[in-house]
Amino acid sequence: MTKDVRVIIVGFGAIGKGVASALLLKNEELARNYGISVRVVGICEYNGCILNKEGIALGEVLQLASAGKLSEHPNWSTQKSTDAIREAEADATIEVTPGNIQTGEPGLANILAALDSGKHVITSNKSPIALRFWELTKRAEEKNLQLKYEATVCGGMPTFNMAKSALQANRILSIRGILNGTTNFILTKMHEENLSFASALQQAKEQSIAEPDPTYDVEAIDPAVKLVILASALVNSKKTYADVKRVGITQITPEAVALAKENGFRIKLIGEIDENGNLSVAPRLIPHSHPLNVSGTLNALMLKTDMAREVFVMGRGAGPMETSSSILSDLVSIFAEK
Amino acid sequence: MTKDVRVIIVGFGAIGKGVASALLLKNEELARNYGISVRVVGICEYNGCILNKEGIALGEVLQLASAGKLSEHPNWSTQKSTDAIREAEADATIEVTPGNIQTGEPGLANILAALDSGKHVITSNKSPIALRFWELTKRAEEKNLQLKYEATVCGGMPTFNMAKSALQANRILSIRGILNGTTNFILTKMHEENLSFASALQQAKEQSIAEPDPTYDVEAIDPAVKLVILASALVNSKKTYADVKRVGITQITPEAVALAKENGFRIKLIGEIDENGNLSVAPRLIPHSHPLNVSGTLNALMLKTDMAREVFVMGRGAGPMETSSSILSDLVSIFAEK
Repeated sequence: MTKDVRVIIVGFGAIGKGVASALLLKNEELARNYGISVRVVGICEYNGCILNKEGIALGEVLQLASAGKLSEHPNWSTQKSTDAIREAEADATIEVTPGNIQTGEPGLANILAALDSGKHVITSNKSPIALRFWELTKRAEEKNLQLKYEATVCGGMPTFNMAKSALQANRILSIRGILNGTTNFILTKMHEENLSFASALQQAKEQSIAEPDPTYDVEAIDPAVKLVILASALVNSKKTYADVKRVGITQITPEAVALAKENGFRIKLIGEIDENGNLSVAPRLIPHSHPLNVSGTLNALMLKTDMAREVFVMGRGAGPMETSSSILSDLVSIFAEK
Repeated sequence: MTKDVRVIIVGFGAIGKGVASALLLKNEELARNYGISVRVVGICEYNGCILNKEGIALGEVLQLASAGKLSEHPNWSTQKSTDAIREAEADATIEVTPGNIQTGEPGLANILAALDSGKHVITSNKSPIALRFWELTKRAEEKNLQLKYEATVCGGMPTFNMAKSALQANRILSIRGILNGTTNFILTKMHEENLSFASALQQAKEQSIAEPDPTYDVEAIDPAVKLVILASALVNSKKTYADVKRVGITQITPEAVALAKENGFRIKLIGEIDENGNLSVAPRLIPHSHPLNVSGTLNALMLKTDMAREVFVMGRGAGPMETSSSILSDLVSIFAEK
């Protein structure tokens, strides 16, 4: 006996397509291991939606999307995503649109529409979660729905589900982490190849690791937003983005990197929730042999807890399949029999 | 509304006392955060048991145990643990006796008594789990009971609960890890202080890191047993202890350590489940900058998965409070509302 789980995927960029591919790939395993049969009954993009309560053929829709022809799908309409979410007969909404950090939109409206119409929410969209963590978790709780956000921080690396399922008897006293792969790549290049910030950034752009406008990353806005979610979810903090003391990496010179190196350190962009609950993201000197001295685009977290003491996790902070690992983890945790 | 959870603790050495201390410490938090009120209705030692269905006062019993006077407790009797487990009106058995690796006893009999009398099992005892993984998990399933063993491998470090709650959509393709803190301490000392194996072992004994008879550790028996549990639980392996290719660290010379060091490596005792499902524990050369190059008594695991790719976890592999973190994690996962 498998349980039919109907989902609507909102946002069909790299992550949305990754989720669809992952569902194709994992269909049989999810049924066999967890008794779950996932049917995608809706897919939304910024300019329209596909709804089909019988289930959308994912192979076909992925081909159309790759060719930029999603609107040629027979079930395509120019319906707004919030309307489609309300209308869809779905058990869960997978919200994976890109977020605006000032407004949280369009994800915020999508998440609210999903909760209001009785659907669980799984999201990779950090902006609405960081901006309205307590309001959204309360709204979900009132409706007896789950709001899951494993993919918002550190991509495919176990973060919230790890802390809440393996460290749940602990109080988390402090957190230090590398929350942004792009800046870690740039700093690694500067360290290993003695490059200037500008040259390292250029390499990151050429390898599509940095976006054309890298402001969110190099000014530490992205990791600051993630830090707010970590603080809310793991140390019960009411602090907001405005409370994060934030310093980016644009002013780091090859001389500073060389000086650190000579003394056995690396400069790393570290997000920190200290034992007093203060939030900061700033370049820090990390000893060469310290676990947080991770290279390339990897993400990492060091949790200090009252019982298990230090717990360190490292993994892939980005990538469609890696992020889908976290999204499917949330899905299974909602729908699998305990 | 809190749910009353009645437990019997079997084994009252360092781990059992750690669990009792942790329950005292975490009583209010477990009630507030998870709606669970834990009442210890039984405590067993090798020579007798204390049963009290109203709940045993833990502060008092810890004082008696520290003074070696457990048998002076008013509810003490010389009842056998298996009989006490059957008789106790408990929801779960916390089995934390030291295990015999050949027979799995006394833990095996205790676990069977618990399952047969309708009690969930939480254990830190690796021997019975490694010897009879499939039989015990099947028995628990038939009885609709849970058998949880987070603490059997890597102490307080998130292992099974992490993999099953944060990576559950993944197939785990291979695992490499440092599964034994004592040998890692010895190898770290040999590397950092150019000590012989014998001198490093002596230091480990003086710091109570190695036992008087260190055979289980230095001959890699302990990590081989843990590897079997990892293989059973995470890659669905039917392999047993006899299938583990096992080489200890007693033959490692200061010359070998120095040669590795000169070439940018460290010698580490690595447990490995390779992509073909072969199990081995043996000294390996690990590059200086590799994550598995962890120092001291820490434990670590590198999981290679199909979606999240590489996930690395590091934490404390031993210690009563650290191990109790895993035991309480299992307890909460069984009894908290989903």
